[in-house]
Amino acid sequence: MTFPAAEGAAWDGIARACDKVSSERLWRMHEQMAAFGAIPGPGVNRQAFSAEDIAARKALLAWLRPYGFEVYVDEIANLFIRRPGRNPGLPPMVTGSHMDSQPRGGRFDGIYGVLAGVEVLFALEEAGLETEHPLEVVAWSNEEGSRFAPGAMGSMVYSGACRLEELLDVQDRDGVALRDALTATLAATPQARPRAIASPFAGYIEAHIEQGPLLEQQNTTIGVVTGIQGTRWFSVEVSGESAHAGTTPLAVRRDAFQAAVAVVNELNELVAAQPDDLRFTIGRFDVSPNTPNSVADKVSFSIDIRHPDADLVRTLGDSVMALCRGTRLGCPVAIDEKFNRPPCAFAAPVVDRVEAAAGALGLSHMRLASGAFHDALFMNDICPTGMVFVPCERGISHNPAENAKPEDLAAGARVLLAALAGLAAPRS
Amino acid sequence: MTFPAAEGAAWDGIARACDKVSSERLWRMHEQMAAFGAIPGPGVNRQAFSAEDIAARKALLAWLRPYGFEVYVDEIANLFIRRPGRNPGLPPMVTGSHMDSQPRGGRFDGIYGVLAGVEVLFALEEAGLETEHPLEVVAWSNEEGSRFAPGAMGSMVYSGACRLEELLDVQDRDGVALRDALTATLAATPQARPRAIASPFAGYIEAHIEQGPLLEQQNTTIGVVTGIQGTRWFSVEVSGESAHAGTTPLAVRRDAFQAAVAVVNELNELVAAQPDDLRFTIGRFDVSPNTPNSVADKVSFSIDIRHPDADLVRTLGDSVMALCRGTRLGCPVAIDEKFNRPPCAFAAPVVDRVEAAAGALGLSHMRLASGAFHDALFMNDICPTGMVFVPCERGISHNPAENAKPEDLAAGARVLLAALAGLAAPRS
Repeated sequence: MTFPAAEGAAWDGIARACDKVSSERLWRMHEQMAAFGAIPGPGVNRQAFSAEDIAARKALLAWLRPYGFEVYVDEIANLFIRRPGRNPGLPPMVTGSHMDSQPRGGRFDGIYGVLAGVEVLFALEEAGLETEHPLEVVAWSNEEGSRFAPGAMGSMVYSGACRLEELLDVQDRDGVALRDALTATLAATPQARPRAIASPFAGYIEAHIEQGPLLEQQNTTIGVVTGIQGTRWFSVEVSGESAHAGTTPLAVRRDAFQAAVAVVNELNELVAAQPDDLRFTIGRFDVSPNTPNSVADKVSFSIDIRHPDADLVRTLGDSVMALCRGTRLGCPVAIDEKFNRPPCAFAAPVVDRVEAAAGALGLSHMRLASGAFHDALFMNDICPTGMVFVPCERGISHNPAENAKPEDLAAGARVLLAALAGLAAPRS
Repeated sequence: MTFPAAEGAAWDGIARACDKVSSERLWRMHEQMAAFGAIPGPGVNRQAFSAEDIAARKALLAWLRPYGFEVYVDEIANLFIRRPGRNPGLPPMVTGSHMDSQPRGGRFDGIYGVLAGVEVLFALEEAGLETEHPLEVVAWSNEEGSRFAPGAMGSMVYSGACRLEELLDVQDRDGVALRDALTATLAATPQARPRAIASPFAGYIEAHIEQGPLLEQQNTTIGVVTGIQGTRWFSVEVSGESAHAGTTPLAVRRDAFQAAVAVVNELNELVAAQPDDLRFTIGRFDVSPNTPNSVADKVSFSIDIRHPDADLVRTLGDSVMALCRGTRLGCPVAIDEKFNRPPCAFAAPVVDRVEAAAGALGLSHMRLASGAFHDALFMNDICPTGMVFVPCERGISHNPAENAKPEDLAAGARVLLAALAGLAAPRS
């Protein structure tokens, strides 16, 4: 696949700008950002609206000051860095992600999408490439939700998925209200001008580490993200009868553990007939009374199903619900649905543009669906949206061991630049 | 099977004594004993050497006072009630069990064996049946081990399986030393004469509720206990790698949960080829990190194997150890042996005598091995030993819901009388 022929002339300017993306500068920004909330080892603890988060925001704006970009902030402290377009009346093309981390997080989750966006701005400046649309980098507030639940607050509020007023009384473990944490965060960046929530975007592309092993294993640099998987969560309960392990013959037991294993075996058979890209996880499995010499009287376990195809998630989930009924080995089996979110499909023009950009830059690439949630999930509700994934070491994320290669991070930023600039109508 | 023909004359006297066993008296004694440590509902909390245990001991001796039996007590407060034989130089034939209960125990576990023995003494008195050997009822101290660990202290010390001096400093949860609890217990029965630990027995037969469902399900009144099963306990560890449930394809996971289920399935196949009376239990199963959206990085589970045949316990246990090695689904599997006690086989003449007694009394009976441990396990080391089981409701034990039928309890006492008296050489 090549870049659209009609944009041949524009492509030369974009290609020159992509050449200005600096792997070293981008990597150095990651290292500097990792100092804010550094924990022993390579990890980061930079929770939303914390002193570390605020310090990172201030540092970012300080780096950008020499470039004279406009800076905006909305009421939930989403931060926007704007490079003007030739037509100030057009809505911006936006990229970004989040700056907050898990309590024991890594140096790339979220912050990479913000820094890749900043690197794009730097490269466009150096190349002198103008765009019709303004181009913005956004740092969404509180994507992780570790300190103030739920996560993705910034993008949810911006997209209208929830209202800020509903969240202001949420407290962290120390009893600090979101309302007060927000006030302190907003006070720390007085140079940022107010931005109304839900101001329209022309489009949104988010760069992120994959948080899975697929790109690394396929030796592929760029993940062209087609959407975010649908998810259904279930809880299964198996009820047996406790009995003495020494005195009760197997034939008369109502052993909730063995009955649960029978259900798991049936579920595994069901799953074996599904496509390879189905995610099926039994991650929680609780046994009662859970002592070596008592037959279990109760087992409760979780089922997590994810797939990009809405039909598959619906029908497989329904099959799982039908399967986890009745009795096994004399033990009643019951199932409860805990969560159901259909897949989100990103806008075809954006997905195609990301794919074309990777192709035109000569980077290996593949389409894939995101297994995890991202701010892009909510942007997809309000504008044409896409994502760019880059490989991370062994797929490890939400973990201090999270790692990525400088050249992959830079490749992702180049794809981001080419796709954003192409959609923002470059004028060289 | 009928009672040995050679004892035909003696049998008439025994049969007359058996007729004197009173279902009502025996049941009433159970009801009265259940008052000592009564908890809300039908249950009992009468832990060893507690005020409740001491009150029960005093009540028992008060009931017996009119009969003039000799009462002895040893240094660990095992209580012996002796009906003299014609030949005072012979060692006694002994029956009994324990009076202490689990913290949330029932009205029959242990205490039935003591009260059935007392009922035997009452019936022999009423029938005027003399025996060559003295006949004793023993109440072993602290069989449950709920307050002072380990359990079966009284019978272990008496049989020499451990020394009293090693136990005296054991403390309960309130910091009370066994030494002091024993002193208080011994002081409460001043009428009991000292008995040396390890004084010889001619034989020992213990009556007990089955604590399993077999007799009830087979509609059988008497369990002729052939021995106590051998037991091997193992702990299996399966090591995987934690991963994001949404992002990690099934094919690249090292899912400790699914690997553990694979091991369990192989174990179940191995067990399916074993005799029906094998006990095989996976009662503890711990998953880490045990969250719905993370692939498990570790599973640890227990295996409990029991069977009366020493060869089977040894070879099956060894097969289990061989099976739980190597890797499954990329996850290393390791196994540790935690406990190994070979089966105990009761003395054939005692087992045969119990069986003959049940047959001669016209009671339905079957041979079976005990799944649980009992004081008889330790008596078997020092004298010819056997046990009589009676049905308990749905096999439930160590539970306030423990229940048994008055007529079954009386039937067990009749078998006990016939077997004991036969072995004690009756003279009518």
